[in-house]
Amino acid sequence: MRLFIILFCCFSSTFLSFGQSDADALFIKEIYNTALTEGASYPWLKSLTTNIGGRLSGSPQAAAAVEYTRQELELLGLDAVYLQPCIVPHWVRGEKEQVRIVNSSAIGSLELNATALGNSIGTDKHGITAEVVEVQSLDEVEKLGKAGLDGKIVFFNRPMDPTQITTFSAYGGAVDQRFAGPRNAAKHGAVAALVRSMTTRLDDYPHTGSTAYEEDDKNIPAVAISTNHAELLSDLLEKEAVQVYIKTSCANLSPKPSHNVIGEIRGSEFPNEIILVGGHLDSWDLGQGAHDDGTGCVQSMDVLQILKRMKYKPKRTIRCVLFMNEENGQAGAQAYSKISDEKKEFHLAAIESDAGGFTPRGFSADGDEKVFTKRYKKAVEWLPLLEPYGLHFEKGGSGADIRYLKPQQGLLFGFRPDSQRYFDYHHTSIDRIDAVNKRELELGTAAMTSLVYLIDKYGL
Amino acid sequence: MRLFIILFCCFSSTFLSFGQSDADALFIKEIYNTALTEGASYPWLKSLTTNIGGRLSGSPQAAAAVEYTRQELELLGLDAVYLQPCIVPHWVRGEKEQVRIVNSSAIGSLELNATALGNSIGTDKHGITAEVVEVQSLDEVEKLGKAGLDGKIVFFNRPMDPTQITTFSAYGGAVDQRFAGPRNAAKHGAVAALVRSMTTRLDDYPHTGSTAYEEDDKNIPAVAISTNHAELLSDLLEKEAVQVYIKTSCANLSPKPSHNVIGEIRGSEFPNEIILVGGHLDSWDLGQGAHDDGTGCVQSMDVLQILKRMKYKPKRTIRCVLFMNEENGQAGAQAYSKISDEKKEFHLAAIESDAGGFTPRGFSADGDEKVFTKRYKKAVEWLPLLEPYGLHFEKGGSGADIRYLKPQQGLLFGFRPDSQRYFDYHHTSIDRIDAVNKRELELGTAAMTSLVYLIDKYGL
Repeated sequence: MRLFIILFCCFSSTFLSFGQSDADALFIKEIYNTALTEGASYPWLKSLTTNIGGRLSGSPQAAAAVEYTRQELELLGLDAVYLQPCIVPHWVRGEKEQVRIVNSSAIGSLELNATALGNSIGTDKHGITAEVVEVQSLDEVEKLGKAGLDGKIVFFNRPMDPTQITTFSAYGGAVDQRFAGPRNAAKHGAVAALVRSMTTRLDDYPHTGSTAYEEDDKNIPAVAISTNHAELLSDLLEKEAVQVYIKTSCANLSPKPSHNVIGEIRGSEFPNEIILVGGHLDSWDLGQGAHDDGTGCVQSMDVLQILKRMKYKPKRTIRCVLFMNEENGQAGAQAYSKISDEKKEFHLAAIESDAGGFTPRGFSADGDEKVFTKRYKKAVEWLPLLEPYGLHFEKGGSGADIRYLKPQQGLLFGFRPDSQRYFDYHHTSIDRIDAVNKRELELGTAAMTSLVYLIDKYGL
Repeated sequence: MRLFIILFCCFSSTFLSFGQSDADALFIKEIYNTALTEGASYPWLKSLTTNIGGRLSGSPQAAAAVEYTRQELELLGLDAVYLQPCIVPHWVRGEKEQVRIVNSSAIGSLELNATALGNSIGTDKHGITAEVVEVQSLDEVEKLGKAGLDGKIVFFNRPMDPTQITTFSAYGGAVDQRFAGPRNAAKHGAVAALVRSMTTRLDDYPHTGSTAYEEDDKNIPAVAISTNHAELLSDLLEKEAVQVYIKTSCANLSPKPSHNVIGEIRGSEFPNEIILVGGHLDSWDLGQGAHDDGTGCVQSMDVLQILKRMKYKPKRTIRCVLFMNEENGQAGAQAYSKISDEKKEFHLAAIESDAGGFTPRGFSADGDEKVFTKRYKKAVEWLPLLEPYGLHFEKGGSGADIRYLKPQQGLLFGFRPDSQRYFDYHHTSIDRIDAVNKRELELGTAAMTSLVYLIDKYGL
């Protein structure tokens, strides 16, 4: 695929006349200069993370984040800033989880670094104590069946594959355990689930994230434990039967009203062709939701700030959308696409930043097969303007929120920064402002703004 | 230049037969797998940084680092491990520097976050108090001359340009102030120099680094101050005359014997064609010398460890060199090239890693003009094998230690990782193991090993 892009780039780079290409190169350089010297991404992120913090859907912090970002967008002098209602799940963690190995002949009792998984039910007030059965896969759960799992705590311990160069591939290869493991184990009579945290690192931070229940499931409590404790527990299980005690008080409460936050600059020539930039405003509760996805939100807001500051008058409508509830339901994204379809809107392009605020590497692209090839070819023609900034395109995937817009037949982009550190922080207590590098963040903002500029100027 | 590379790659990628290219792709994938699962880079770096720490030339820590790395290389079962003598400058920092604003009408007295520059002389025991004159450039020093500078402390305050995408370019555009500023100011009667720290960040860490004296200079004490304090001092100077007190006890002692550390696997077919991989073992004293340049040393050692573990038998001689004294003299590099020339050795290639242990982006290349084009073309033919790992080539520059080998007419490569965070840590107290990401480090090792493999297999 890379070879295709390179070849294509060679044969089509004459498409842009030199004069026009030079003007675009200068404009893009000015976008970078502005992002790196007058960008608002970092101060916004600092405020969002340190003044508000983690922003679980339905929480007071999520409501505060809606109001804060709305107010900041209103200061930019956009053509419209508004809130879009949606109804979000309201899961609460409750008291700090207690998870411990009990009565091991080798080590006695040991508290495990653990966190309840999102959507999980809690235990009753007495907690659960049961023997642990380690498995490496969902298949193994089916093989063990009721005979092997009834009354047991199932421990999913297949690590993320460290040899994957892109960590998202490694995540994709392991997260079935967190997502579907507990519900599948429940069908065979398991009483609770432990899941190895989703990271290639060996460390002490448990990583939360959604687990999925089906309506008709007999639900069981599910918690993640840190990779170091997953290793320890696995080693112990080689020597002896191990019992673990789990007490959680998380719960799914009644759904609550919440909002997407939207700001836009209307297009002068083609106002009905929308270019969306967005991230998700909600986050898990353990840290500050910095890389996931505070960075995507402030970068998307900053695209508008930078274009306004540069006095750029877009031909097409450029819209920033901060989606609510990406983490555990995507109610905001579904509300957004439903209303957009009802209004018969057309998103020519949408760019989602939800892979962290690291040094940009480029964009992935996805779209309806009827139009994808044509639109992607057009985007690839811009590579000579983007490669000096280390940016590339690749086919496949966009973002969890914007994927609902695929039937509108625009081109969907996923912003793709360097992925190496993302799962050091993902869904943990250390996804905080100090994990974000200001320059890396600003370079991402500049990359997104540059792509928006090219789409606006040349269409797709 | 990028376009050149891309074009070249298209027209020459047929050079490698598919079968051979597939075998190479598999071997390189295996190199990455090994680096990411059985690499020694990170544990070696942890030991070097936390058990030994900062390794200033001539210090006991530098001697300990020589012995530690020699012992580790000896455990690998190489064909030769040896120390190569050199005589290094012996600069010592002495007591913690005292640098403070005195008797400001606006703020009274204020201690500044400061560090003596390497090579700098100290003040006498009473210190120096004098009025501060801020300048933005060496030109301004010449314009002010004796009339403006006599008896003054000169404050070099031109920031690194944040709009440079590669931070090394920004560093290159500002570091003349640190390197030549103090000696130039001394010629006009200045009594000391303050230099704004070399980073684009606004923070509280002073960055040390070499300043240069000429033999016939009237030397003056020179210190760096943190960027936050440089901003504060500059703001104050707009309002009032400011006096600063400086007391340092650094000194240049008698040169000391030290060593380069060398390990090699001899080539089976062309033992006289040497492929060198290296970094520098010395560091500044403030931190642990993690990114500068512990990472380059352990990556270079790990190239040998990985090839041995994979039971690879090289055709050419692969030599790891840990150079002593890169930071303030390059005595090790000069001794190495001198001995190499005397032995009539031929370095077909040399790869230096001295730009941090961040996610690899590729390699820069340099060489004698008689052979550069031919050799570089050959390397660029390998791009289809390296691009899947995010690696590219660019012309220009290699490394401070290996540049002395240029007359041998091999190809010199600089390992080029992502540069965005490098100057957050460079020459500071926070260049520590916790600033290094294990995966990013290992990917760099794998990139270097892959290039060594291709050079060994196909020549240049």
